[in-house]
Amino acid sequence: QSNVTLFGVVDVAARHVKNGDNTLRSLSGNGLNSSRLGFRGVEDLGGGLKAGFWLEHGFNVDTGTQSDAARFWNRRSTVSLSGGFGELRLGRDFTPTYTGFADYDVFGTNGVADAGKFNSVLGTNADTATRSDNEVSYFTPGNLGGFRAQVSFAPSEKVAGKKYMGGRVAYGAGPLDVSLAYGQTTVTPSAGEDKYKFVVLGGSYDFGVAKLTGYVSQAEFANLEMQVANIGVQVPLGQGILRASYIRADASGRTAAGANTENNDANQIALGYVYNLSKRTALYTTVARVNNKAGATFVVSGGPALPSPNNGKDSTGVDFGLRHSF
Amino acid sequence: QSNVTLFGVVDVAARHVKNGDNTLRSLSGNGLNSSRLGFRGVEDLGGGLKAGFWLEHGFNVDTGTQSDAARFWNRRSTVSLSGGFGELRLGRDFTPTYTGFADYDVFGTNGVADAGKFNSVLGTNADTATRSDNEVSYFTPGNLGGFRAQVSFAPSEKVAGKKYMGGRVAYGAGPLDVSLAYGQTTVTPSAGEDKYKFVVLGGSYDFGVAKLTGYVSQAEFANLEMQVANIGVQVPLGQGILRASYIRADASGRTAAGANTENNDANQIALGYVYNLSKRTALYTTVARVNNKAGATFVVSGGPALPSPNNGKDSTGVDFGLRHSF
Amino acid sequence: QSNVTLFGVVDVAARHVKNGDNTLRSLSGNGLNSSRLGFRGVEDLGGGLKAGFWLEHGFNVDTGTQSDAARFWNRRSTVSLSGGFGELRLGRDFTPTYTGFADYDVFGTNGVADAGKFNSVLGTNADTATRSDNEVSYFTPGNLGGFRAQVSFAPSEKVAGKKYMGGRVAYGAGPLDVSLAYGQTTVTPSAGEDKYKFVVLGGSYDFGVAKLTGYVSQAEFANLEMQVANIGVQVPLGQGILRASYIRADASGRTAAGANTENNDANQIALGYVYNLSKRTALYTTVARVNNKAGATFVVSGGPALPSPNNGKDSTGVDFGLRHSF
Repeated sequence: QSNVTLFGVVDVAARHVKNGDNTLRSLSGNGLNSSRLGFRGVEDLGGGLKAGFWLEHGFNVDTGTQSDAARFWNRRSTVSLSGGFGELRLGRDFTPTYTGFADYDVFGTNGVADAGKFNSVLGTNADTATRSDNEVSYFTPGNLGGFRAQVSFAPSEKVAGKKYMGGRVAYGAGPLDVSLAYGQTTVTPSAGEDKYKFVVLGGSYDFGVAKLTGYVSQAEFANLEMQVANIGVQVPLGQGILRASYIRADASGRTAAGANTENNDANQIALGYVYNLSKRTALYTTVARVNNKAGATFVVSGGPALPSPNNGKDSTGVDFGLRHSF
Repeated sequence: QSNVTLFGVVDVAARHVKNGDNTLRSLSGNGLNSSRLGFRGVEDLGGGLKAGFWLEHGFNVDTGTQSDAARFWNRRSTVSLSGGFGELRLGRDFTPTYTGFADYDVFGTNGVADAGKFNSVLGTNADTATRSDNEVSYFTPGNLGGFRAQVSFAPSEKVAGKKYMGGRVAYGAGPLDVSLAYGQTTVTPSAGEDKYKFVVLGGSYDFGVAKLTGYVSQAEFANLEMQVANIGVQVPLGQGILRASYIRADASGRTAAGANTENNDANQIALGYVYNLSKRTALYTTVARVNNKAGATFVVSGGPALPSPNNGKDSTGVDFGLRHSF
Repeated sequence: QSNVTLFGVVDVAARHVKNGDNTLRSLSGNGLNSSRLGFRGVEDLGGGLKAGFWLEHGFNVDTGTQSDAARFWNRRSTVSLSGGFGELRLGRDFTPTYTGFADYDVFGTNGVADAGKFNSVLGTNADTATRSDNEVSYFTPGNLGGFRAQVSFAPSEKVAGKKYMGGRVAYGAGPLDVSLAYGQTTVTPSAGEDKYKFVVLGGSYDFGVAKLTGYVSQAEFANLEMQVANIGVQVPLGQGILRASYIRADASGRTAAGANTENNDANQIALGYVYNLSKRTALYTTVARVNNKAGATFVVSGGPALPSPNNGKDSTGVDFGLRHSF
């Protein structure tokens, strides 16, 4: 019997989403954390060297379906060598540009308040917004006085939207944590440009009574830009934690077809509470409201279609769920 | 390492099915129980409250394929909170109308004698005949003097055939067990009707030398009806159990297109033996014969096409298999 | 908690393949062993009888995808009864004609040097080149003085390319191992013939300082033939093993369309080294060059398209990888 750790999360929620005047009630999930089943292990090779693997499958509790129909091990599929030099990690994994903002979204990029809805690839076919296939990453070791860094590369394998180069540097000391990440993805060219670029500065400070966390990011491709600012707070309250965030998304530039995106701005305000029944099990509720400016079409996930033309209709969502870890 | 139970069934069988004059020999499976791999766990939250999860994947041993190409965790994918109040269970699971008859089929709705072949949705798109996605169920606690009940609800999520409401009440005392279940599914309308309804009364009585078990059910949609009566017996015999059942299916009414279904009746007679090599491992054989009236086209699963037009051809099947649980 | 063994392999590699003038760099895998996750168990039934199951899923570490999109448990899905009589094994598994050559490929039919690229089904739809669905196999017990044999059968289930009958006899004593395997698959008929036949003679001899291993095989269908000879050597060297092989593939006969295949010959030379970091973890590198004669189109897997018309362009590949077992 080998030394394998089996782990997972099951997260299910009742969700109600209103897009303009359309509403949808559903049994949904992934409101606090994404449902998953994983297997991981580490082998000590001696001399400080270790080999490890990590396989993580995402699924939807409400229907029993895979999160990603094409990739069973969609969340992570990696082999690592680690030691005093740090870690070399190979396979499908998060991109540093994703963790660079997701680590500083107080809602953990999950549920109705998910900040990921504003993480635009600007119409490109970049397949690196969250994770990348074929990723080769190096992580610095943990003993650099609070400093940590990651560089990642993925080859194109002759498929547009796959080639990625990125990195992240971060520093943590006591209550403070700051991070800067940058990445670029080679996409199908438009207007002579084939690089989708993303930069994000994130940080958090724990005051004890409350923890402030947030980021500012900028995505750029050809003439298009999207800037996002996210500021959140989490406050320990009773047997749980109160969470709130405010996000602004500011689009600019013209598409290759000449459409002006300046009016595609939006903001979101969200509030939630997590009540811990134990370390592994929690009840939670979140409410989020996306205010779309005239041309913007951001929506709370798991909802009905936005009315078309949208003309600045809002998207509102609330969920109430149960998250259990094992 | 978390407290997770890994469990499963592997069931493989040689099967021979004859439909009219067409025959098919196959390596098949699921003749005694459905093959599956599952993970489940329970956490004690204190104060009598428990959280639990259950993930169960169905597959075919003969080919290594998923039972349900679209849902990996097709058999069950649920999170539960349970306590003195009973159990609240959320996710994909059996419907109470399915367990309401399946619990009283002496062949456990598996193999050549499976009673499920007569469980008609009357041409509707009801996706609730066996299980339902997005199900919210409440189960009564186990200390109600033999009485138990379940109510279940699934939202439509704007998809026809998904919205379900149903429930089941049952009573068990010593050798006796009786159950009544009712459910309705909202389907694509026909002839002004959008409710597919199913009601089933089941029961069993254990005389010691033999256990009688059976049910009567009625499915109804617009002008169509299907009534099924199933009576079975199981007799402990040597290191195993002898099983036999007789099923009558009685169709009535006209389809929206005006076709008369009155002649689509059928009956099935089946006999089988399960030889236990251990508590976990058994050899089994079953033979079943479906006698189709003129317009009926019921068949033993895993067989060749029925001749067309069928004109009352029979379907006969036999399997011989091995079931191993872990 | 049941007595189940969880096991697996994660194998990832950087690979560079050149086909004619086309090149492709990739993060790939399965260079030393195929990545897999499996569950298996054995139950002692008493009296020397045992029941067992084996479920084995193949995947690609680089992308998290299934190896076989249609079959999750593509590598093996079997139930067994075993005892003094040998083993009866039912389900999806290797064919004896596959293990009959794969056991004698010094590169284990994996990676850039994989001998499987020459294992032609001669344009038929035989689905038995590596594994067979619905396989019923008998294996002799292990106490026959070095002699072992397997016979296997799979029914057609009315699908061309599925019906298989084959067997293998082998003898091992000290440093010597020899094996003869034969199988035939019933395929869609062409030129009045519906049997694809494959025969292979393999052997190995361990001299201590080096182990020689190889096989000769012949595939035959209607007027077509493919003969393959593979000779390999493995030499313990330092903390690892040096591997080299030379393969010749000799095509002959005409296709049903009248095309002459005489010129579709090829040979491959390959060299590799496996460096063991532990019993479970290894670094490896392999380089292979396929020399295609005028009409041949054999390629190292995971590469770009061959130029078309190919006109005898070569395929060259090199990988450098990490294999971890658990």
